Order: sequence, then structure tokens, then C-alpha cells
Amino acid sequence: MPLWKIYHPEDAFTAEQKRALSQTITELYAPRLPRFYVGVVFQAVPADDFYLGGEPATNFVRIWVDHIARTLPNAEARTRWMNHVIAALTPHIGDRGFDWEFHIDETSFELWSINGMRPPAPDTEDEKRWKAENRPSPLTATVA
Amino acid sequence: MPLWKIYHPEDAFTAEQKRALSQTITELYAPRLPRFYVGVVFQAVPADDFYLGGEPATNFVRIWVDHIARTLPNAEARTRWMNHVIAALTPHIGDRGFDWEFHIDETSFELWSINGMRPPAPDTEDEKRWKAENRPSPLTATVA
Amino acid sequence: MPLWKIYHPEDAFTAEQKRALSQTITELYAPRLPRFYVGVVFQAVPADDFYLGGEPATNFVRIWVDHIARTLPNAEARTRWMNHVIAALTPHIGDRGFDWEFHIDETSFELWSINGMRPPAPDTEDEKRWKAENRPSPLTATVA
Repeated sequence: MPLWKIYHPEDAFTAEQKRALSQTITELYAPRLPRFYVGVVFQAVPADDFYLGGEPATNFVRIWVDHIARTLPNAEARTRWMNHVIAALTPHIGDRGFDWEFHIDETSFELWSINGMRPPAPDTEDEKRWKAENRPSPLTATVA
Repeated sequence: MPLWKIYHPEDAFTAEQKRALSQTITELYAPRLPRFYVGVVFQAVPADDFYLGGEPATNFVRIWVDHIARTLPNAEARTRWMNHVIAALTPHIGDRGFDWEFHIDETSFELWSINGMRPPAPDTEDEKRWKAENRPSPLTATVA
Repeated sequence: MPLWKIYHPEDAFTAEQKRALSQTITELYAPRLPRFYVGVVFQAVPADDFYLGGEPATNFVRIWVDHIARTLPNAEARTRWMNHVIAALTPHIGDRGFDWEFHIDETSFELWSINGMRPPAPDTEDEKRWKAENRPSPLTATVA
């Protein structure tokens, strides 16, 4: 459900650092969602393709995120979530000396599909099984 | 109007398969919209840039879509559309053995432009002409 | 805050043209926002990865934008903004003979972070300082 897209300078991350960051991101959601819901795409951007304020961005990591499976219900929940994400990501990015920015959009649960199925509603038996098995399987209940 | 972005493993699709998939996607909209509204961008993602649940995603196709020209008005329309999309895409992706996921966001009709024009409102004479000619042309009515 | 993603044919823009376009985009926001809020990512798309209406797009520039720091409050403001953007971008794209399309999404101010901080609210002293110094600095007021 969450899709993370990470634009970064070439050589900003080794393969091991990318994997570690993707695991940190996965852990943010793992208390509530199946791990396989969490997709992360890294993209190295050459300096002449990446601009901040009209100048080449050579030290900048720019992340955008779509949330689908859950919506943050109010300002307090959004603040708590943002602080949680910032704390988790800082060691991977800010503490390594990069400038960094991220933003999250929330999109429709009803316009989402995994392996040709519409994923189970939150906290249903189907979602619990998907989470426990960490893979999609045929649904026992119809998604409205 | 719809913009489709398709992240896929390297070598997942030949050029011919990409073209065929883009045509299948175009057909989803062709009953109502000009064909040239349908944009599709494929992007091969190397295994060390693509993670699912914190592990490298080597067999995964991840699609995100923005809808602009039309909004699905209610849950029934969304269900019908999702089933339609799933049926059309499955032969190109799921039946070939890939895991796959897609989600759709809906964005503002008023914040959209083609060739320096704001596209015609739904079902107007201007839109019908754009559809019939499959190209944008000067508008006869002002978009509000 | 605004993130601009520009898909374009290979060889559509030189590095100097990309920098000039990113500066034109930055100027659109500079009257109100810190210049460093404006991120632009260019991505060359090979012809066999880029389709419009099911056919390879060889002369097409496709832009999508996320707005975060400000929301356009009504239809008049959206029209004014769109006309402003179209006028600024046309010399860089349409006048050079490309077909082009762009759309803008508006996402939550509360789900946005720069350098581990939640950016200051519009027109606050903190935002004025960020703008004047063209860099983020510790906040004096808490973001709600």
C-alpha cells in the first residue's frame, strides 16, 4: 500500500544502504500492515536532471509517498506519524549529511489492487491472514 | 488525462509487449475519451533499487495512475472500473507470472493543461472533436 | 514544496535548457515561497518506454506536479495560476515544437517535512526567514 519513491544523487546509497532503508520503512508499517504492502523504489538522479530552487541539487534526497491502505484520521495522528517517520529516517539520510524532503499523499482505498484482487478491508480476518503469511491469498469476504 | 507509470523488473517486457499493454490501457478509456489523453511511462527498475517488504523485488510490477479528466462518482462505479482494469491487465502481467499492484489517484480537472490549453469539459462539442480527430485543436468554448 | 517531475524524450533538453526551465519554474513560486522549496526532476524516457494513445511518444513532454505548501482556494485562483504557468512554460516547450501536458495535484501540508522539520505555516516569521535566507533553519514556533 504505501509506495515510496526516493530520488537521490548518484552514489548516495550503496545497495546495502538502500536495502537497510527499505527495511526501516517497512518497519514503520509492520505493526499494522502486511510487510509485502510496503513498496520502495529508489532512483538515482544525475546532477543535471535534479534542481532545487533553480540550482543543481547535488546533495538532496527527495521522497514522495502514497498512502492507500490507511488514512491518518486527524491532525494529532498526522503529527505523531510524521515525527515517527522523521525519527526513523534521519539516521539513514539527514545524519549522513544530506538535505532531504518528503511528502505524503493519501489516495483511495477503493482504487487499489494487488495480484488482481482488491485488498481486504482493515483489520478483517483476510487482512490478518495476509499479514501473518506475508503474501496475498484468495479472499473469504467480498470487498464492498 | 490518465497518466500511467509502470515500474517493472528489467527484461519484464519487450518493446512489443510494452506497446501492446499501452494499447490495452488506451482501450480502457477509448469509449469515452480521446485516445491521445492516455499516457503510459514504463520504467525498468534494477533489483537493488526495488524493494517489497524490505526485500529486493525481482518479480514485481508496480503501477500508479492519476485520473484527471473524469472522476469515478461512487463506490459502485469504482468497483466496476477496478474489475474492468484488472480483467484487461491480467493477461499482460498476472498471467505471465508477475506479482503486481496498482493504485489510482484522482486529481483536479481544473489543474490540467494540454498544449497550453485547458482541455474541454466532459461531453462538450470541443471534447467530441478532440476525440474524433484524436488531436487537440483550438477550443470554441472557454473552460470555466 | 512543489515537486515537478518532467518526462521528456531523450535529447529534448540540454543541461542548460533544463537549468533554465527549472529557474522559470522557481520564479513562478518565488514571490511567495522560499526558492529552495521548488524541486524539479527531469527524466528522459526512451521511445519504447513512452506511449500516448497506444503509440510511441517521440515528441511529447509530460509533467506532473505536487503542490504542498499552498492550496489554490477557488476556481478563479486555479484559472489564474494555470494561465500563469502556461505562459511561463510555453517558450521552453510548446514554442520549441513539443506536444506537452501537465497536471497538478494538491497534497496535505501536514504530511510534509524538510530536513527533519515540519515546515513553517504560511506567512509566519519562520517562513519569512526561510525565504529571506533561502535555507531551512530551526523553527521558533511549533507547527500545529
